[in-house]
Amino acid sequence: MKMKNVSWQERYHAPEIFTLICRLEDKPGMLGRVISAIGESNTHVGSILTIGVDSSHKVRKIRVFCSDQEHLAEVVSIIEAIDGVEVLEVIDEVMEIHRRGPIETVSRVKIDRISDLRMIYTPGVASVCKKIESDPESAYEITGICDRVAIVTNGTAVLGLGDIGVLPSLPVMEGKAAIFAEFANISAVPVLIESKDTDTIVDTVIRIAKSYGAIQLEDIAAPECFEIEKRLQDALDIPVLHDDQHGTATVALAALISSLKRTGRTAENCSAVILGAGAAGVAITKILLTYGIKDIVVYDSCGAIYRGRTEKMNSVKQELAEITNPDNLQVSLEEGFKGRDIFIGVARPNMVTKDMVRSMAKDSIVFPLSNPVGEIDIRDAMEAGAAIVADGRTLNNAQAYPGLFRGALDAKAQDITPEMQLACALKLAEKAEEPYLLPDMLDRDIHKEIAKAVAEASRK
Amino acid sequence: MKMKNVSWQERYHAPEIFTLICRLEDKPGMLGRVISAIGESNTHVGSILTIGVDSSHKVRKIRVFCSDQEHLAEVVSIIEAIDGVEVLEVIDEVMEIHRRGPIETVSRVKIDRISDLRMIYTPGVASVCKKIESDPESAYEITGICDRVAIVTNGTAVLGLGDIGVLPSLPVMEGKAAIFAEFANISAVPVLIESKDTDTIVDTVIRIAKSYGAIQLEDIAAPECFEIEKRLQDALDIPVLHDDQHGTATVALAALISSLKRTGRTAENCSAVILGAGAAGVAITKILLTYGIKDIVVYDSCGAIYRGRTEKMNSVKQELAEITNPDNLQVSLEEGFKGRDIFIGVARPNMVTKDMVRSMAKDSIVFPLSNPVGEIDIRDAMEAGAAIVADGRTLNNAQAYPGLFRGALDAKAQDITPEMQLACALKLAEKAEEPYLLPDMLDRDIHKEIAKAVAEASRK
Repeated sequence: MKMKNVSWQERYHAPEIFTLICRLEDKPGMLGRVISAIGESNTHVGSILTIGVDSSHKVRKIRVFCSDQEHLAEVVSIIEAIDGVEVLEVIDEVMEIHRRGPIETVSRVKIDRISDLRMIYTPGVASVCKKIESDPESAYEITGICDRVAIVTNGTAVLGLGDIGVLPSLPVMEGKAAIFAEFANISAVPVLIESKDTDTIVDTVIRIAKSYGAIQLEDIAAPECFEIEKRLQDALDIPVLHDDQHGTATVALAALISSLKRTGRTAENCSAVILGAGAAGVAITKILLTYGIKDIVVYDSCGAIYRGRTEKMNSVKQELAEITNPDNLQVSLEEGFKGRDIFIGVARPNMVTKDMVRSMAKDSIVFPLSNPVGEIDIRDAMEAGAAIVADGRTLNNAQAYPGLFRGALDAKAQDITPEMQLACALKLAEKAEEPYLLPDMLDRDIHKEIAKAVAEASRK
Repeated sequence: MKMKNVSWQERYHAPEIFTLICRLEDKPGMLGRVISAIGESNTHVGSILTIGVDSSHKVRKIRVFCSDQEHLAEVVSIIEAIDGVEVLEVIDEVMEIHRRGPIETVSRVKIDRISDLRMIYTPGVASVCKKIESDPESAYEITGICDRVAIVTNGTAVLGLGDIGVLPSLPVMEGKAAIFAEFANISAVPVLIESKDTDTIVDTVIRIAKSYGAIQLEDIAAPECFEIEKRLQDALDIPVLHDDQHGTATVALAALISSLKRTGRTAENCSAVILGAGAAGVAITKILLTYGIKDIVVYDSCGAIYRGRTEKMNSVKQELAEITNPDNLQVSLEEGFKGRDIFIGVARPNMVTKDMVRSMAKDSIVFPLSNPVGEIDIRDAMEAGAAIVADGRTLNNAQAYPGLFRGALDAKAQDITPEMQLACALKLAEKAEEPYLLPDMLDRDIHKEIAKAVAEASRK
């Protein structure tokens, strides 16, 4: 049996998750042989469960991470080559979870009697309509808009996949909606807008906006995303937030606050280099400024962004040039690393070398967040002297957005302001327990506390 | 205590439903006294429950139907005037049911482990996106569009309330969505489009259509609703159906099929007069033609619609003139009733007299469906000789639309054709048990059977 010469890092990127149902002869050492063989093929193993036992065999569920079907086939053949082991079934768990979509609309009211129908629908509902007609504010109490968020995308910048179109982006929106439901009791609905035209997208959202209590923009490419967000925020009196910008920025700031604390730094005395001036890079820069980090230089594919630069500028980068780079540095990225305390990357894989990290200040903080592969491997960054590292797998905007929107809805906020995002980041950092930079994402109570902090910040 | 001189019919229209929590001295005759007093004020009483008992008193929940707050206050004072009775609390049950909306989005998947998150969202979801990118058809299996219906309105023809605007119409859309969820496992989402412009509405729906498996148009005024429905059906490859037209027509046909059976008639030998050429009137006429009733005359506010008429015509009425009225009758509504077997009204209250019904054929079928007050009171119609009567309270399109859409989605239909509507009506009539014209709306099994029949009709 041939094994492909693929590093585990390559294999781990954007993995597909499969569950192998394996029947193993029941004697000591068998499971170890199977798991070791999988590991030798540079394949990650997840949970292992025993799901059946008879007098001679055990049936195990073994979860593996494969880069593609070919990789999966290789793993299966490696296992089956072991005497006394048989792969009974391969389950594509991800597809199973997404079958018919992971979300659904349910009625909060059982309709078991005619009188239920007559209250939920005609004729009873007429009195609810009339109440809203005479007092539009009451819609927030007697309809679902207090919990309903549209997740709006045009599918132009989906995960690490790029411009794949609206329909292929739907599973991401449904996944986000499931997270909204689980962590914040928010009824999110995907809205796929088939257009790349800024005016069209803005007009469409404005026309349907009355259906929702807030709008989450998602996976819309830069620089269009900036204008779309700004124009919708100006036009609508409900919160509009582009998660790829502000969700990501909020979580990055939270991890940074934890990191500053643990390395004994304060915001005022820190300098940062940010690589990437897309949706996330711009938002991270702005929230770091809001938090009080004054010396930030932003790099894009042309180098440092500075006042007077002419190449590949746009209005957003122009603004960055004005508010960052106090010394108006024009040096290369390599030079730009020297002596800096913080690096945050939201650009492309493998842009940063160990030498660059070595040139940073002592106990540097290095966040190569590019997905699925970071600007530098976090192990390399640590070897090069970084005190604290985090990559895109550690920082997940699902930490922030459920609480941000729940808090905004509860406060009937018209915007999710930088102050509300800051309140979210501070609460996340407060709840993080060493060695982690962020709290447990699955802890419902923390999402509730974030919502409370965000709502309070809104009321101020 | 003064009692207003209001007939119970007036009071019963578009009632608000209240629950009175009453404490009554515990002796025989007390409850009768209370209920009789309520009845004497021409107020309908719903369910009565005992919710508390002590040595001297009983606490009862009494549901009453009131036309407005003044009426409610009158009922409360009438009850409180009785010795030994006290109204402890008045609950507005309709508002309670609609508080925060009757529907919500939930996750079908519990997110309790990091691996759940990694499958439902990044990085696992990327494989689902890629699958759809390479095979768009698979979206029907691995996203929620197979169950997701948009309920689209512009709020211009809401119930009997008219053009109240989009936000006040939202409780109706949410009520419909709750019915979809309960009876058909359909995840419906309200989409309020703030526009009265046909082009704008059509464009907006087309742009967001990829989010859904079907579109239900709702409470959009005629004649715009005809063009909007037609253009969307032509532009989209998913079913688009205006419920006020076809849901209503399907249920009316079902009741009519039951009625023909019970009066020993066949479609071919029947003549019908239809009053109203709006959304429902046009659709009812067309489905009756599909069913085989050949002699139909449609009336609007100007009289009979006939070939050659010039007053108040539009393209839809022009089409009606071509396909109905075989003898090209131009007589008055009163004359038009003479000798006809069937009357269906979807126009305005009290347009039809007992004499008109008397002039119809023996054992006539009279459906005054205008809401909330019919073209003639069904009691008057029976006194005037109608063999079978039904009004808007008896016929509810919630009988039809859950199964129509479920069947269409299950068959991956591109339209909900007249044949599918006919299949629905036939199934409804088949399942109706005397003396009822339609089956029990709350019976989930019947909605399932309708869906099956509709899906079969689609596949043919």
